[in-house]
Amino acid sequence: MACINQYTSRLDSLNFGDMFGGDFFLTWEKSHDEILATFTIADALRRLRENNISPRIFESGLGVSLFRDNSTRTRFSFASACNLLGLEVQDLDEGKSQIAHGETVRETANMISFMADVIGIRDDMYIGKGGAYMREVARAAREGYRDGNLEQCPALVNLQCDVDHPTQTMADMNHIIHHFGGIDKLRGKKVAMTWAYSPSYGKPLSVPQGVIGLMTRFGMEVHLAHPQGYEVMPEVEAVAKKNAESSGGKFTKSASMEEAFRDADIVYPKSWAPFAAMEKRTDLYGAGDFDGIKTLEKELLAQNAKFKNWECTEKLMSLTKNGAAKDGGALYLHCLPADISGVSCGEGEVEAPVFDRYRISLYKQAGHKPYIIAAMIFLSKIKCPQETLANLVSRNIPRCFP
Amino acid sequence: MACINQYTSRLDSLNFGDMFGGDFFLTWEKSHDEILATFTIADALRRLRENNISPRIFESGLGVSLFRDNSTRTRFSFASACNLLGLEVQDLDEGKSQIAHGETVRETANMISFMADVIGIRDDMYIGKGGAYMREVARAAREGYRDGNLEQCPALVNLQCDVDHPTQTMADMNHIIHHFGGIDKLRGKKVAMTWAYSPSYGKPLSVPQGVIGLMTRFGMEVHLAHPQGYEVMPEVEAVAKKNAESSGGKFTKSASMEEAFRDADIVYPKSWAPFAAMEKRTDLYGAGDFDGIKTLEKELLAQNAKFKNWECTEKLMSLTKNGAAKDGGALYLHCLPADISGVSCGEGEVEAPVFDRYRISLYKQAGHKPYIIAAMIFLSKIKCPQETLANLVSRNIPRCFP
Amino acid sequence: MACINQYTSRLDSLNFGDMFGGDFFLTWEKSHDEILATFTIADALRRLRENNISPRIFESGLGVSLFRDNSTRTRFSFASACNLLGLEVQDLDEGKSQIAHGETVRETANMISFMADVIGIRDDMYIGKGGAYMREVARAAREGYRDGNLEQCPALVNLQCDVDHPTQTMADMNHIIHHFGGIDKLRGKKVAMTWAYSPSYGKPLSVPQGVIGLMTRFGMEVHLAHPQGYEVMPEVEAVAKKNAESSGGKFTKSASMEEAFRDADIVYPKSWAPFAAMEKRTDLYGAGDFDGIKTLEKELLAQNAKFKNWECTEKLMSLTKNGAAKDGGALYLHCLPADISGVSCGEGEVEAPVFDRYRISLYKQAGHKPYIIAAMIFLSKIKCPQETLANLVSRNIPRCFP
Repeated sequence: MACINQYTSRLDSLNFGDMFGGDFFLTWEKSHDEILATFTIADALRRLRENNISPRIFESGLGVSLFRDNSTRTRFSFASACNLLGLEVQDLDEGKSQIAHGETVRETANMISFMADVIGIRDDMYIGKGGAYMREVARAAREGYRDGNLEQCPALVNLQCDVDHPTQTMADMNHIIHHFGGIDKLRGKKVAMTWAYSPSYGKPLSVPQGVIGLMTRFGMEVHLAHPQGYEVMPEVEAVAKKNAESSGGKFTKSASMEEAFRDADIVYPKSWAPFAAMEKRTDLYGAGDFDGIKTLEKELLAQNAKFKNWECTEKLMSLTKNGAAKDGGALYLHCLPADISGVSCGEGEVEAPVFDRYRISLYKQAGHKPYIIAAMIFLSKIKCPQETLANLVSRNIPRCFP
Repeated sequence: MACINQYTSRLDSLNFGDMFGGDFFLTWEKSHDEILATFTIADALRRLRENNISPRIFESGLGVSLFRDNSTRTRFSFASACNLLGLEVQDLDEGKSQIAHGETVRETANMISFMADVIGIRDDMYIGKGGAYMREVARAAREGYRDGNLEQCPALVNLQCDVDHPTQTMADMNHIIHHFGGIDKLRGKKVAMTWAYSPSYGKPLSVPQGVIGLMTRFGMEVHLAHPQGYEVMPEVEAVAKKNAESSGGKFTKSASMEEAFRDADIVYPKSWAPFAAMEKRTDLYGAGDFDGIKTLEKELLAQNAKFKNWECTEKLMSLTKNGAAKDGGALYLHCLPADISGVSCGEGEVEAPVFDRYRISLYKQAGHKPYIIAAMIFLSKIKCPQETLANLVSRNIPRCFP
Repeated sequence: MACINQYTSRLDSLNFGDMFGGDFFLTWEKSHDEILATFTIADALRRLRENNISPRIFESGLGVSLFRDNSTRTRFSFASACNLLGLEVQDLDEGKSQIAHGETVRETANMISFMADVIGIRDDMYIGKGGAYMREVARAAREGYRDGNLEQCPALVNLQCDVDHPTQTMADMNHIIHHFGGIDKLRGKKVAMTWAYSPSYGKPLSVPQGVIGLMTRFGMEVHLAHPQGYEVMPEVEAVAKKNAESSGGKFTKSASMEEAFRDADIVYPKSWAPFAAMEKRTDLYGAGDFDGIKTLEKELLAQNAKFKNWECTEKLMSLTKNGAAKDGGALYLHCLPADISGVSCGEGEVEAPVFDRYRISLYKQAGHKPYIIAAMIFLSKIKCPQETLANLVSRNIPRCFP
């Protein structure tokens, strides 16, 4: 039992009862305690697995995945999380077309959920649509459960929408917590969430938005920097401001990578598309105007190309906290895959030597994601997490039979 | 144990021993007791799951699915059934082309079956072919088992062929039984299986055929109505007639939706293609005559369009048993997805208000399918079902760990 | 326990400790004891399953499959093996394009491996590339484990590369051992690995290479026969020669099917493409020269057509050991699917009557593959296989619940 006592006692001090039976859409819809509970469960599940104690809670059940975009990383993270808990993944392939709404969503949600304990959706392509679609699915499933069509209510986990990317940013945040040795070590630290140049087009805004919406909750200074024209959704900036105020942190902005990196403890340089352009693209798709989309694409690539100097270089890294010292400098984050200059593209988001120095750290960052997803499922499905964790330890079924 | 006593004692009164080691092709190849045993096991498995007792009987094993058509509903039902019993689904994707026969079928059947406990096939596109193909696969697997190539003989479950759709109609029937409160309540009830207009082309005949082939076995009057030219296979009508005679029911026919609906207790209005046209299409596909197929498609859509008045309206519903009373009227069934007028199409099979009133019921109807499939597998794989059910209760492994 | 004593005591006499934590690339990188241990574990796992004792060692975990080619047989064998041991298969679909190298491989290997216990790769299309790619993935995964990114190191299993096809040839070999009643019965037997005509183009060399690289280890005479121009990789011939010397067997060659078949105990007639042509094709693909590829394809088909008389006929079979006797003649092997003259093609590798006589044997041959793959995984993952086998017997969880 010793191995999980620290987690159960941390949970004892948190108020997260509302997560039972709930969904996970946006981090800012969750209370601070709920966010902390998610990290704690993620760490506890990992600890169990590291000790070859299976945290499998389901003997059977499906984890339905619905991806509007290809994604090796998120797909494998979701599959790993489901598998760890005992759920078998079934992919619902609806192609990249915009999914029909209304009647069809309601019906599909019920038809896939007879034995589904979780539905994971990634739908980040259309501004104002992805998140709305997820809520529609979740509402339909909840109604199906209420009406007695479904014997269990599947939890909905947002695997990336147009607004937030909670499984990514929660994994990022847990990596930061582990890197700095605890949440209490974060107060006053500076995070630079900056735009970076990429030769590709239309990268989603969910990561920068998710980062400023989440990382402002821990008393840090979160600095958002991007060239003019690459604004994120104003309502998410409002969330960041409010969070910073409540947590005793700061939310600052600039149009300068240098300013962002100066004295930063953490840097997250990453390309994204302008919010307004993504809105326009959504309308063009809606109107079936494919010529318009092509024109927009060209414009956006040309616009990006004006900001090739937004690259995470060693020189910029030297501006960060202790950046002059050997092995010093900020913690470099990326959600991967990164556009590495001279490696995966000609000119990109980051210089190869910077990326190389942080590769192991980046893989560790990514490695938190399966556990974060598993924690989201666990908290929605398990009424008394502390008790269940203790039960799993006493049950003591090895993950790999000796 | 209490929770499953009613099921085991019902099973004690039934003679269904021949289902062990068998396949499930057509409902009319099964005895009345075997049909009842399938409903009983389906209900028992559901009861176990509802009580959080895992009915998982396999520690490992594959459920192979072979679909010639896309199908969210049936695919998820099959996956749910397999998963509930402990089998992992492996899809065998052969595209939509007609599968080769002879040598290749024999070889494929063996190569996919090394650890397969069930093979589910959906092949409804070609009249005279789908069912024949399934039997060929089943025969090859059986030979492979007899010859010692396979250590277990996979059960074949017909997930829809050109003749019957047993997992659908058994689910429909179990829904009816639950709705009316038991099989003994069905005697004398009237079922209207009617054609309905759809703007789409080539819907399979397996549902209407399966319905008249199954529902005539319970002492009900089954009335088949369709416009001239939409005849179903004569051999299935013969089955329906014979069933009705044996069960003390009736099998009647007309070319009038009104006549069918009048005083009906259950209505099942649904589009299908004319049998003769499907035969012609099969030949055209066989000859690779794609121009011919296009011409046929146009003809069929034009033919359909003559019968747009075959729509399940509130007015028609008012003709059914107690149709004039508030919340009265027949039980409306559909295998989903339905063509709902003004919702999923301009003019379709059913008026939106009718569909809306029955939505919860329709989802419940669909919800029987995973359990029906699981029951078919269970009965083929388990020698002494009553004993195994009792063992599952005493084993008492929770479906979701508390 | 009785049922597995023979396997554990055989294992006691073998030295195979290095397989723990290892990969399986080429059979000739494994010691004789390691090869024997693989057969022994394969047989033990099968014995357990036959006795309805589940050999499932994983409560959770993924088996990642990465196939550059469609393959029903190998895919289902891998899925069966993973499933038997408790791993859920997740396919990583990278299409048929040559996978990027360097940075991307390293990243992908880590991103798919968070909970992967095995990665199975089939990449046989490009000479000099498939095997190299596998080693790159394995190295990256090992580094990820060493650096603490991964909590377990996935074993890499070669499901066919440009050089060897170890899961196939180990299955073939185990079939031979069982057919002749033990390894000690094989000394002095003659194996004819011969080219055969096929109307298709570009069949991989991994089977003939794998066969001469493996079967020369058991004191048999392995005779390789092919028309001029169908040479296999010289370095593999060198391996065969060396193996034959060490094992007291022979490695002989000719350009005559008759000479190969004469007095053979085992025949393996199978088409393959010339090594030099495959090298050329790899370069053409690399250069994106699709016209060149088409030209090469035509040339190769024309070249093949000169050797239509390389067909496994009854007449040729009569030359083999006791070939004149009723039910006599060599054991006929094929990795399937075979090009059967008059059945799956006009003129092909084997006459229909020969194939027919051996069908059951061929299916049994194929049936060894899932167990061979499971054994490779088992030996990489389990530190003390004898102990674990004994534990599985005492644990005594039924594969199918009674």
